[in-house]
Amino acid sequence: MAEASYQSISPSDFFYRNREIAGFSNPSRALYSAVRELLENSLDACEARRVPPDIYLRIREVLPSREEEGPEVYSLRIEDNGTGIPDEYIPLCFGKVFYGSKYILRQSRGTFGLGGTITILYGQITTHKPVRVASSIGKEIHEYEMMIDIEHNEPIVLRHEVHENRKGWRGTIVELQLEGDYSRSMNKIYEYLKQTAMVCPYADITFVDPKGRLYRFERATDQMPPPPRAVKPHPKGVDVETLRRMVASTRARNMKAFMMEHFQGVGEVTAERFLNTASIDPKTPPDELGPEDIVKLVRAANDFEEFNRPDPSCLSPIGEELLGMGIRKELNLTDADFLMAVQRRPSTYLGFPFIVEAAMAHGRSLARQGFSGITLYRFANKIPLLFDESSCVIWKAVNRNINWSTYLVSPDTPLVVAVHVCSTKIPYKSVGKEFLADQPEVEREITNAIRQLARHLRLYISRSIRMAREKRRLSVFERFLPKIAEFSAKLADKEEIPDITPLLRAVGADLEEVERRIKEVPQVVGEGC
Amino acid sequence: MAEASYQSISPSDFFYRNREIAGFSNPSRALYSAVRELLENSLDACEARRVPPDIYLRIREVLPSREEEGPEVYSLRIEDNGTGIPDEYIPLCFGKVFYGSKYILRQSRGTFGLGGTITILYGQITTHKPVRVASSIGKEIHEYEMMIDIEHNEPIVLRHEVHENRKGWRGTIVELQLEGDYSRSMNKIYEYLKQTAMVCPYADITFVDPKGRLYRFERATDQMPPPPRAVKPHPKGVDVETLRRMVASTRARNMKAFMMEHFQGVGEVTAERFLNTASIDPKTPPDELGPEDIVKLVRAANDFEEFNRPDPSCLSPIGEELLGMGIRKELNLTDADFLMAVQRRPSTYLGFPFIVEAAMAHGRSLARQGFSGITLYRFANKIPLLFDESSCVIWKAVNRNINWSTYLVSPDTPLVVAVHVCSTKIPYKSVGKEFLADQPEVEREITNAIRQLARHLRLYISRSIRMAREKRRLSVFERFLPKIAEFSAKLADKEEIPDITPLLRAVGADLEEVERRIKEVPQVVGEGC
Repeated sequence: MAEASYQSISPSDFFYRNREIAGFSNPSRALYSAVRELLENSLDACEARRVPPDIYLRIREVLPSREEEGPEVYSLRIEDNGTGIPDEYIPLCFGKVFYGSKYILRQSRGTFGLGGTITILYGQITTHKPVRVASSIGKEIHEYEMMIDIEHNEPIVLRHEVHENRKGWRGTIVELQLEGDYSRSMNKIYEYLKQTAMVCPYADITFVDPKGRLYRFERATDQMPPPPRAVKPHPKGVDVETLRRMVASTRARNMKAFMMEHFQGVGEVTAERFLNTASIDPKTPPDELGPEDIVKLVRAANDFEEFNRPDPSCLSPIGEELLGMGIRKELNLTDADFLMAVQRRPSTYLGFPFIVEAAMAHGRSLARQGFSGITLYRFANKIPLLFDESSCVIWKAVNRNINWSTYLVSPDTPLVVAVHVCSTKIPYKSVGKEFLADQPEVEREITNAIRQLARHLRLYISRSIRMAREKRRLSVFERFLPKIAEFSAKLADKEEIPDITPLLRAVGADLEEVERRIKEVPQVVGEGC
Repeated sequence: MAEASYQSISPSDFFYRNREIAGFSNPSRALYSAVRELLENSLDACEARRVPPDIYLRIREVLPSREEEGPEVYSLRIEDNGTGIPDEYIPLCFGKVFYGSKYILRQSRGTFGLGGTITILYGQITTHKPVRVASSIGKEIHEYEMMIDIEHNEPIVLRHEVHENRKGWRGTIVELQLEGDYSRSMNKIYEYLKQTAMVCPYADITFVDPKGRLYRFERATDQMPPPPRAVKPHPKGVDVETLRRMVASTRARNMKAFMMEHFQGVGEVTAERFLNTASIDPKTPPDELGPEDIVKLVRAANDFEEFNRPDPSCLSPIGEELLGMGIRKELNLTDADFLMAVQRRPSTYLGFPFIVEAAMAHGRSLARQGFSGITLYRFANKIPLLFDESSCVIWKAVNRNINWSTYLVSPDTPLVVAVHVCSTKIPYKSVGKEFLADQPEVEREITNAIRQLARHLRLYISRSIRMAREKRRLSVFERFLPKIAEFSAKLADKEEIPDITPLLRAVGADLEEVERRIKEVPQVVGEGC
């Protein structure tokens, strides 16, 4: 028989062995994931500080490739103007898997608290080079050079320097080396930055690529969406383990106080009514609850219908105006194009609040840029999702749930559909954060948002068709009436050709009027829901 | 500004918060995943012991549902006759995430060493009930009742009893409670067991479901595939971190000895030649290697073309005979149906060895069972993969890379294609183990295996078409010749109708001969590759 050998591995070691599940499966994908993870951390840090992000990203070749194409060693540097990280947390934030600031109930791009550390880990195992981190929360600047002790999941600080901060700089700089393949990941990285600019029109992003090319995504506004707040949990989303922990650590003297203190939207009346439904005496001290009682409470909370809807203030949707602005900017739309954005009302799945926003664009500008058919942009908590499109519930909603021909959309109509789902808990199906599981409530909201936009689109398209027909009809008059007038004048031997303007007006040939009517089609307007 | 709060969470806590990435996204999927994870552990334990698995699985209703459908509490029990777990390891194996026996270089169903513990964790957070584990390695029986301290990733033993083991029982029993939804997961669970029986025709699996129904998947043979062996790593698969660890812990006195001792298939000549290519003196003591040298060695190993192919003895493919046997049994095929299996030669991706096996079935038995079009069965290390089919490289190979019409397969031809990939490292794209990333080498082998089978299938189908045409032609003779003979006899006023047998034989109407020729089409044969 084969001998079994038992051992424990650290979380760092686990992700080192299984880095492909976090998106680091090969040099091309790894470079893309590294950019993504660091950029997301930077954007989160800027939004936490409530300043419009100024991000500088640079990828430089360190070791030239041995072949024409293939993996090379790059240096990746990112600078932001975010909150900065307090000195004492810097080594742990970047050198310990499962350590971070994302483990609270509030919308953020990061959910797993993994990305930064895994990027550094990947750099280390492919180049054996330390990472350099400089950060300031507005006081002095702390600079670290460090590596990760993968076997023990601990940071190893190689150098720590404190610099004066005369200009009062605040933010974080991360610089690391890693193996990557820029020629293969170039398009995805560019697309990722462009789509990020689309949902963050208040961000300034500068990117210098390994060939020295400069890409600038300039902000279109200083206005930022309202920041998310950390909230108490909703009773419907609670499970046995969470409740057990809350009961073990509470200072509430009885269950009624406990319910009111630890859950959102539970007042005196609701607390009492709920505890009665669950057959728990509101006067019971929390520490007298047995395991059976805890299970009973969780099951009762799931069934109880009188709780308030979850509080959406922990969410930070983009908003119809900003979403429309971002899309107009990145797709170079003109006023003649159709563009509309909607934000749905907050809803919930499994006790987690979520909001769906969607935008739709159509028109000549898209056709001129080569768009044909439906181009889908997927976003989750302001992160563009670029891979595994057809496994995603957003794709399903757009391609399976909508009968586009009812909306006068044919297979080659140039159409852009953008969908943004924000939630305290995005139902990702993998650590790589590329596609959403099909939670029925989320699917329904996405489908409804698209239908809502598509109804307006149909109006626009049918008007465009009518106007085009009208224009064709008028152009016939315009083209031939002068000829006829000229010909008639000749026939009648008259020198002067009669004025045909009154005649043209009579058949309705006022092109300006036609243009005006085309423009009446709504633009970037929300209609609520 | 929003305050950031930094904290560390344990691996248990991470998977507790993100259980959907391990397949525990909702009650229906959770019950399926629980069955799967425990069954895979049991099968691995039996194969490690090299005995044909005897598995008993039972799901019982504990708390009836409050509604017609929806989540309920079930008790899940699984018994196996595997190796058993040594007493001192039992609590850690089931109560600590990232602890287990799967962290070595050998093919096994488990790869992440997570499944069992996460199943127990899920049971605990939905029911707050301890898990019961009994196990014996042939000596006394150890019984544990335990829970998981999720915040600290440690087992909490509530009870430990030692029983006499008079009958010399060996194996493991796990019993736990969890929230699930059997009515929604029933079909997937049944399908999973059936497909497991297909790739493990040497296993006996008994399943008693919550409605008291008994399902028996009986073994067709006692013959088992050769067991996988743990092997040394291949130099091509090594990364900087692995090499650093090896160098730090080796007892080899110089780099030549180091290469020969720690890598597979590296002899004296290869070691010297390789080290020269990497410009490392073979006499260098390993502890004198700097970080730069380690990076240099890894890059050189990637480029060096003279290493042996990776040793496939760490793999345990099913084999053409067993795979064919399993499919025949579970699909109730007869001798007249087409059935063929192939095993490709070992190959490698990123230094990991892998083997692709495939089987194809077609015929009347399938049509009678309602099969129409291509039914794809996907397996990885003998695990059936049931979800996210279209994201999997196997699906891609079958549906994108093969032009089925060249093989006379029309869209409604009843056809079963089964593909098994085995490797020390299956390129799963998620912890849920449902689909494989498209590593080009793996994709190529799968495509070739299917092409190889499809060529034989075309032969079978074209013969079947010819035979059917022949039969139709003969049945015309058979039907009309006797009539003509009778009619001619009447016309000629003869009492006796002439014997038409010689005539029928002359037009080739020997139906037995036709049948025999149909049967000549090959069956369950490998043709090597």
